[in-house]
Formats: sequence, structure tokens, C-alpha cells
Amino acid sequence: MQDFVYYTPTEVVFGKESESQIAALVKKHGGSKVLVHYGGQSAIRSGLLAKVESQLKEQGIEYICLGGVVPNPRLSLVKEGIALCQREAVDFILAVGGGSVIDSSKAIAYGLCYDGDVWDFFCGKAVAKAAMPIGVVLTIPAAGSEMSDSCVITNEDGDIKRGYSSNVIRCKFAVMNPERTYTLPAYQTACGAVDIMMHTMERYFSPDTDMPLTDALAEGLLRVVKDSAYRLLADPQDYNARAQIMWASSLAHNDLTGCGMKSDFATHKLEHELSALFDVAHGAGLAAVWGSWARYVMDANISRFEQFAVNVMGVSPSDDPRATAIAGIEAMEAFYRDIDMPVSIKELLGREVSDDEISLMADKCSRDGSMIIGSFKKLDRQDMVNIYLAAK
Amino acid sequence: MQDFVYYTPTEVVFGKESESQIAALVKKHGGSKVLVHYGGQSAIRSGLLAKVESQLKEQGIEYICLGGVVPNPRLSLVKEGIALCQREAVDFILAVGGGSVIDSSKAIAYGLCYDGDVWDFFCGKAVAKAAMPIGVVLTIPAAGSEMSDSCVITNEDGDIKRGYSSNVIRCKFAVMNPERTYTLPAYQTACGAVDIMMHTMERYFSPDTDMPLTDALAEGLLRVVKDSAYRLLADPQDYNARAQIMWASSLAHNDLTGCGMKSDFATHKLEHELSALFDVAHGAGLAAVWGSWARYVMDANISRFEQFAVNVMGVSPSDDPRATAIAGIEAMEAFYRDIDMPVSIKELLGREVSDDEISLMADKCSRDGSMIIGSFKKLDRQDMVNIYLAAK
Repeated sequence: MQDFVYYTPTEVVFGKESESQIAALVKKHGGSKVLVHYGGQSAIRSGLLAKVESQLKEQGIEYICLGGVVPNPRLSLVKEGIALCQREAVDFILAVGGGSVIDSSKAIAYGLCYDGDVWDFFCGKAVAKAAMPIGVVLTIPAAGSEMSDSCVITNEDGDIKRGYSSNVIRCKFAVMNPERTYTLPAYQTACGAVDIMMHTMERYFSPDTDMPLTDALAEGLLRVVKDSAYRLLADPQDYNARAQIMWASSLAHNDLTGCGMKSDFATHKLEHELSALFDVAHGAGLAAVWGSWARYVMDANISRFEQFAVNVMGVSPSDDPRATAIAGIEAMEAFYRDIDMPVSIKELLGREVSDDEISLMADKCSRDGSMIIGSFKKLDRQDMVNIYLAAK
Repeated sequence: MQDFVYYTPTEVVFGKESESQIAALVKKHGGSKVLVHYGGQSAIRSGLLAKVESQLKEQGIEYICLGGVVPNPRLSLVKEGIALCQREAVDFILAVGGGSVIDSSKAIAYGLCYDGDVWDFFCGKAVAKAAMPIGVVLTIPAAGSEMSDSCVITNEDGDIKRGYSSNVIRCKFAVMNPERTYTLPAYQTACGAVDIMMHTMERYFSPDTDMPLTDALAEGLLRVVKDSAYRLLADPQDYNARAQIMWASSLAHNDLTGCGMKSDFATHKLEHELSALFDVAHGAGLAAVWGSWARYVMDANISRFEQFAVNVMGVSPSDDPRATAIAGIEAMEAFYRDIDMPVSIKELLGREVSDDEISLMADKCSRDGSMIIGSFKKLDRQDMVNIYLAAK
């Protein structure tokens, strides 16, 4: 096992009554002039934005609003947000939405404490020393950004999607009311479940071994998200199932399920090129490539995939570890199909991906061949091409 | 399920190399004049205290030392520590030890930010608004105090052992090197395992239902602590087993394994009277009464004990839920015996407990009959007597 640091300072306020505390939490964490950052019409239609605004007014906290965040959040809006916050002397950012809104808020928060171009962080030219404080009112459980150290932004100039991680960006608080997710379309609920599970699977498929506590937490979380996704197919307003998924979204990506393990975010990196190029939903993109990644790398440690098959997917152990491992991957793909997620790029896009497009994605993912990804099995540019081809 | 707040701001630095960062962490968290608080000779003999002191000197951080904390830490030393810190203008407390040292440090930290008698917090006369910051170098995994909001102190005037919990006392950081626990005697290792598991079991046996994520995390943690305790019987220097127990000690009591569940700390409360009266090891006291508590309350929700039996203790499910539940309790008692823990008060004390002593403990535990404990099943003074008698 690896030495590790575990740092999750975010105060989570979870449940049906949680939203009554939003403005009090802003105040507690020092906000006096707030940017309320959100996405599209749903935050308005649901009445959540009005609720936030009236609470801030009641508490005498000044605020301005900036909407318009889209999935795969754009650098241009981040820059607009930074300029707006500078003009208005904002000292706290309140993200009202899902991962895209939180990540756009995080990028604004980085930019407000940095003199240069905020993109510097995402292309490795700068290390963040500080960030403006952020609070979250979560409406879409998926990205786990409310408790994670990560932030992913898309630079429209070249369709480049890049992540940057730092402990300085951990949110001060996260308000989570599972009832807010009742109205999520089934497709988005499914994308969320895939993303949540992947955050833990990419910690679970590690070259490290003998960290049974982390394994048990990861396996338990994966089983519960899967079961809860099935419950929501039957009843989208199953409060407890919504609650499991929402809480799992935070725990799956706040590092808990990876303590002591070297992680392997290759599937996320392979997917980032898909969503940057085709603007597809991130969770669906992950489902489309994971099985191909898994079959490509599994022989690096077949017993790990065997353990996953038995402990997570409920496959009966057999004398043939490889057969058990493959049965586990197939069971996961069957789950993806059950919740209407694609298991190939063709199913994702509704058409064949071309060899040129695969070549372009592999170029970008490998930084023109200069970068290796993964740790369970290290993958170079040709490996990426092979996995994209297998997922074709 | 219940609404909940989850707040674990402690920065955990875990592993073989973690101790190199102690002074840097003190500095990062604002310490300039430090009280190094510890227990007996082991911190000196092991060289840990010297390591801490040399690091603080190197970083130019002033410090004073106060040793002498004993198991079931005493109010008198807490008051001595408060007076010392006031005289010396201490602004940070570094606890070097296990739960007793951390709790003594926490009580000092409360006292330094309060004008009245620090015991006020423990007898319900005051609510803490602030506390001096604390860091921990953990040497005994058991109490979980390094990440919990709790603090338990014994007032020698009347042998009264009382707890007080507040989020203001959560530690700033915890340095955990599993190698430090190699030299723990088997008895202390076993006491730790019992205490760790109990912190999670007292969240698990809840009147709340359908929180499968919390259940899965709790069940996984319990299985791993049990397995690791067996590994340590075979090899006390099994690093990975030591690491599981150490990390579990924090996770078992930082609220993770109780999110959404009403807890039931009746066993802890019943035990506090045992260790206050007889000064026995806390973990051993818990083992001595748990089985009797479990049999006394199980019919309040037999399916919960059935689930525990199957998912934690590995009992095969049967058509008779009650038989399965009892088999689970028996399996836990068998585990206690395997690790040389008592399963009755007689085994704990080496003699019969008298009816007068039971009556005295029930008086104190129930505040002379005025207090009910427990939530899985509510227990009054007579219930407490019945459980002590069953555990006799």
C-alpha cells in the first residue's frame, strides 16, 4: 500500500431540510459579496435559484448572478466570471448545479487568486497557491466535484478538455437535497451512476494490493450505486435510492475509496477526448470505452478483475480466474445496457467513429505521443488507438 | 433515513513517511507556541518525543511538554494543562499518543477558550463556541478521537466519566504511522479492535433503515477490522494489517459509518461506568457487556441483527431470523474470546461484580434514574440493571 493524505474539509449538509441553511452557511464561511453561478433554465424553473436569492437577501448578503454554464464547461464563461467577480469585488462563490457548474466555479475561484491566465493551471504552467472560497448547492450527483479536489474545463480554442487538481479548491460546504434530483431525466441519472462508479473503479483498479479496508469501502459503494440505479429505473422518486446515489457521488471522488492505492484515471482521460470532440455526455462516454479498456489491461493483474467480478458484480467464482474476470466485465456492460448506456463509441455517437477521429483523439490524449497514461497498465499512444478501435 | 451533517476537516497524513511532516503541519496550522502533550514512558522510550522535539526546534517553533496522561484521562491533569498553557501563552496543542492523550488535549483546548470550569461542558452546563487548535501524532488506534468530535474525561471527584462532543474540537491534522503500533501489547491491540468496531456497531444498530451505502461501508469496515485483528495475532508486525486497524480507527468514529442513521451509544455508556468504577481498559469493558446488551435489545428489530450476522460475521442465513441473529452475536463473542477479550464482567474483573456495584453503576449511568439511553431500544435504569446482571 501507498502512504496517503486524506483531506476532505467540506461540510456536507444532507437531506430534505438542508436547503434552509444555504445563506447561513455562506455567512459562516465568510461570504459577504457572493457570485451565484448556475447553468440553464432548470435552476430557475425549479424555484431553487429564487430560494437561494431570497435567503441571501434575508441574511443581508449581497450577490450577483451568472448563469449559462453548459456541460463540459467552457473557458470563455470562466473568464467572463473572473472579470465580473473582479469588477464586483466578490468574496465567495456559490455554485448552484452539478459538476459543470461547480467546475466552472472552481476555475473562476482559481482565476481570482492568480495574476496570469487561468488556463495556465490546466496546461501545467502554474500551481495554485490559493482560491476564492466556494460553496455548493448540488442538483446533479455525478462528478463528485462538491467534495473532490478536481476541476475539468474545456478550452474551445482547439476543443481541449483538461483537468487540474488541488486541495486549495475543496469546497467549504455542500448542501445536498436528494429531492432536487427527482426530475433528472433517466439518461442523466444513468450517466451520473456511471461517472460515480468510475471515480471509484479508477481508484480500485490499481497496481497496489492488500488494502482491504479501501477495497471493502469501494466494493460496497459500487454495489449500492448499481442497486440504486435499478431502483430508480422502477421509481425515479425513490427518495432513499436518490440519497444513496447523491451521497455516493461525493464519497466516490473525495479520495475515500482510493486511500493507500495508486489510482488509474485512464478511462477518464480516454473519455475526455470523446466529450471534447463530440460534446457527448461524460458518463455515457465512460460507459462506451470502459469495457474495451478493461479487456485491454486486465492481464496486468487478473486477480484484481476477478475480485471485482465476485465482490462487486456478484459473479460466482470459478477455477478459471480469467473467465471470472471476463464475466465481471460482461456483467458491468450488461448493467450499462440495462440503464440505457452505450457500450461502444458507435452506440454513443449513433455512427461509426472514423480512423482519423481516433487518431486525433489519441494524439490529444497522449499530447502527440509524449504522454503515458494509467498505472494498472501504462498506456502509450498506440495503446490508446487500440482501445479506441476496440471500442469502435 | 435521517438528514445529516458530515464534517471531517482533519488532514490525515498516513504512512511510513508521515512523521517527517509533524512540525511542518504544526506551522501550516498556525502553531507558534506548542504544548506537546503525551502519556507515559513509551513516547520517550520509542524516540517519538525526541523526534517531535527536534523537528519543532528545527522549524523554530517554541514548545513546552506535559506528560502523565493515563487511560481514562483525569480532569486534574486537564486543569493543570490549562493553567500551564495560559501561563506560557500556548497557541497550539500537539497530542502525541492515543485516545486518552487526545481527549486530555481536547479538554485543555476547550478550557483555554472558556472562562468557566472546563467540567461545565461535560455536565451539560455549557456549550463550546471555540477551542484551541489541536494536531495529533497517533500511536494507539482505538478511540478514533483523532477524527471524531468526541472527548471523554474522568472526574476523580466521584469517579464520573463523561463525554462531550462538538465540531469545534475536530483536530487540524493527524499523523499516523502504522509502524508505531508494532510494539503495542496484544491485549491493547485487541482492546483497540473492540473499541473501533463498537464505534461503528453503535451507529449500525439504529432504528433507521434503508441507508444501504452507510450499511455497506460499516459492514466492510467491521469485516476488515476483525480479519486484521486475526492477522495481528499471527504477526504483530504485519504492516498492512496494522494500517487497516489504524485507518479504521479514524473512519469508524468520524461519522462516516453512521451517515443518515440515528446512533445508539448505550454500550459505550454502560461501559463508561465500568471503567470509571474499576479503571478497566475501555475496549475490554465494551466486550464484556456487548453480548448482553445485544440479546436484551435484539427483538426491537431482529432483521437488523440478522443482517449483521450474515454480512459481518459470515453466518449462513436460515429460515429462523432469530436463530441467525443469535448466531451472529455468538460469533462476535467467539471473536472476542479468540483475541483474549472478556465476554462477561466476571472475566473482565477476575471476580464477581456485586449487586451493590451494579446498582451504583445503573444509578450513575441513568443519572439516578432520570436519564434514558439508547435509540435501537430505549433503556431506563431497570434495563441497565438487567443488562449488567445478564453480563455479570
